[in-house]
Amino acid sequence: MTLEQIISGIEAASKDFVAQARSRTAKLVMPQRALGDLHVIGERLCGISRTLTPSVKKKALLVIAGDHGIVASGVSAYPQVVTGEMVKTFLRGGAGINVLAHQIGAQVIVMDAGIIPDIPQQTSEGGRLIVRKIARGTGDFSKEPAMTRDQAESAILKGFEAAKELFEEGLELLGTGDMGIGNTSPSSAIGAVIIRVPVERITGRGTGVDDDGFQRKCEAIKRGIELNNPNAEDPLDVLSKVGGFEIGAIAGAVLAGAFFKKPIVIDGFISGAGALIAHGLCPVVTDYLFAGHKSAEQGHHIMLEYLGLSPILDLEMRLGEGTGAALAMHVIEAAARVMNEILTFEEAEVSKDK
Amino acid sequence: MTLEQIISGIEAASKDFVAQARSRTAKLVMPQRALGDLHVIGERLCGISRTLTPSVKKKALLVIAGDHGIVASGVSAYPQVVTGEMVKTFLRGGAGINVLAHQIGAQVIVMDAGIIPDIPQQTSEGGRLIVRKIARGTGDFSKEPAMTRDQAESAILKGFEAAKELFEEGLELLGTGDMGIGNTSPSSAIGAVIIRVPVERITGRGTGVDDDGFQRKCEAIKRGIELNNPNAEDPLDVLSKVGGFEIGAIAGAVLAGAFFKKPIVIDGFISGAGALIAHGLCPVVTDYLFAGHKSAEQGHHIMLEYLGLSPILDLEMRLGEGTGAALAMHVIEAAARVMNEILTFEEAEVSKDK
Repeated sequence: MTLEQIISGIEAASKDFVAQARSRTAKLVMPQRALGDLHVIGERLCGISRTLTPSVKKKALLVIAGDHGIVASGVSAYPQVVTGEMVKTFLRGGAGINVLAHQIGAQVIVMDAGIIPDIPQQTSEGGRLIVRKIARGTGDFSKEPAMTRDQAESAILKGFEAAKELFEEGLELLGTGDMGIGNTSPSSAIGAVIIRVPVERITGRGTGVDDDGFQRKCEAIKRGIELNNPNAEDPLDVLSKVGGFEIGAIAGAVLAGAFFKKPIVIDGFISGAGALIAHGLCPVVTDYLFAGHKSAEQGHHIMLEYLGLSPILDLEMRLGEGTGAALAMHVIEAAARVMNEILTFEEAEVSKDK
Repeated sequence: MTLEQIISGIEAASKDFVAQARSRTAKLVMPQRALGDLHVIGERLCGISRTLTPSVKKKALLVIAGDHGIVASGVSAYPQVVTGEMVKTFLRGGAGINVLAHQIGAQVIVMDAGIIPDIPQQTSEGGRLIVRKIARGTGDFSKEPAMTRDQAESAILKGFEAAKELFEEGLELLGTGDMGIGNTSPSSAIGAVIIRVPVERITGRGTGVDDDGFQRKCEAIKRGIELNNPNAEDPLDVLSKVGGFEIGAIAGAVLAGAFFKKPIVIDGFISGAGALIAHGLCPVVTDYLFAGHKSAEQGHHIMLEYLGLSPILDLEMRLGEGTGAALAMHVIEAAARVMNEILTFEEAEVSKDK
């Protein structure tokens, strides 16, 4: 499928099903809307999947990995080799995302969208690795475009295809995650360009750079934006000039959720950047998105406000990997259960009026 | 056991285990403390249970029910008969707490601490009912004391005993919940007296009274405080004059957590009032408490600030029944898993330094 075909195949969520779901909520054996956001989430699930009995039991986290040329400009506290080492840790089952996904019975699918090392496609204890490598890391966008326009489109399509395969296997709820040393820098750049905010406002310390590192990081991002001059109205141009392969693939997974009418939970700052690219291509995708959490990374809340999404959790997390999305899936599943399982006043034979 | 024996048997959580747990967190294969509050919660679990491998797999919600004489003064949007009808709904498994407890594999234990109708002790589809009735509802505290001092002490001891039995059965994590038409009024009164804030600041609309009802509610609470003149320094006096049986029993369950060194998750506004009574008797109980969520009920945040507790969730919920505690248990269990299951940098063979 081409990007144009995907975009033209996306429809808004059903307002009619949301309205019907609200009527059902009003009859539940409790004071009106007493479960607050759980009702809102449950009703959105109804609108997304065009049903009053939404199911999100089959869950997966798609953790997309890529390397970043900008690491050479000293923007990260960790060496670039950690990207591949963490992919191996995911496959061993020993990272944060493995633990939180296991707790909710969700699969972990790791996608190599463009890391430097070669790790063979495999299914192992911690999850499944699918290799969809676009290149061995991006260019240093403070000196050159991160990738070509064709590579940007390819990243989006590969993310779309990976999510499509999962939905075809029966998946009901997909969370996005990321791994890529240096990837808060392209995410900040994408946010600054698309939302039109100063780089300093939307740039944080990522994995924990010190004051000097933070200064270097902001300067490299600003230099990259100035040099590449991305067109804010053209998301493919933004992605190719200052983005990352995993960010493009996350955008593709977001588009797939909207195309196949499945809910997507985005994680933190990097998934937020992916959602910004998808939203730029097709604004209605936000109908299908849940923001798992508000990350502790400075500027993440600016992305969520721009997308019009309220974070489900706010636990000062900033790990990435999809951890915030995985933890929030419990709340989303609770919301689906509230729609399906709580009795009405009538069914419970409980008095409603004095 | 007497109340004095219970209080004198309570020790602070172990600072030494918290410090050891922090050292373990610092080695995990992620940027420093990148899972934010999950680390804080996990380390507190270590301090509570004096271990570096905390387990909270065996979970239960103790949903304590009582009736309230003050309903006669027009403070609630629902008739008093709903208290007993909801207890029956819990036993059928059709209420909010059943659904959220089932999702996390937690038992629901319903305790009749003083509802008007007689419902036989039983184990059924939705949970177990234990009958520990102190009286058939409290007195209308806007006209007389809610209960005698002996009844107040008895409510606390019965809550303590119920929790004690659960811990002796192997329970690792206990959530408190409540059911009682009218019980936001005594909870507001307890908060106003103990925290010394105006009634209007700490009183909300409960199950949803209208403007007139809200006015009536505030006036009844103020009249009750003026008439009974509870001594803020004497929690038993406060509980007996303006409290409720389920609130006293929740205080007892909180004391039991601290006494048996087990974590307790409090739910919303009514559990908050119970925690205030327990804290008045023995301030160190907060070492053992987690605040499941910030309720949408006005004034709940004032209680949490007074107790020094940060809510885990903030989802605009205000149902009670223990629903906020149940939903938060997933996050607490995640925190325990983070302590136990994530590899260190060394174990994962991931590079830490450039």
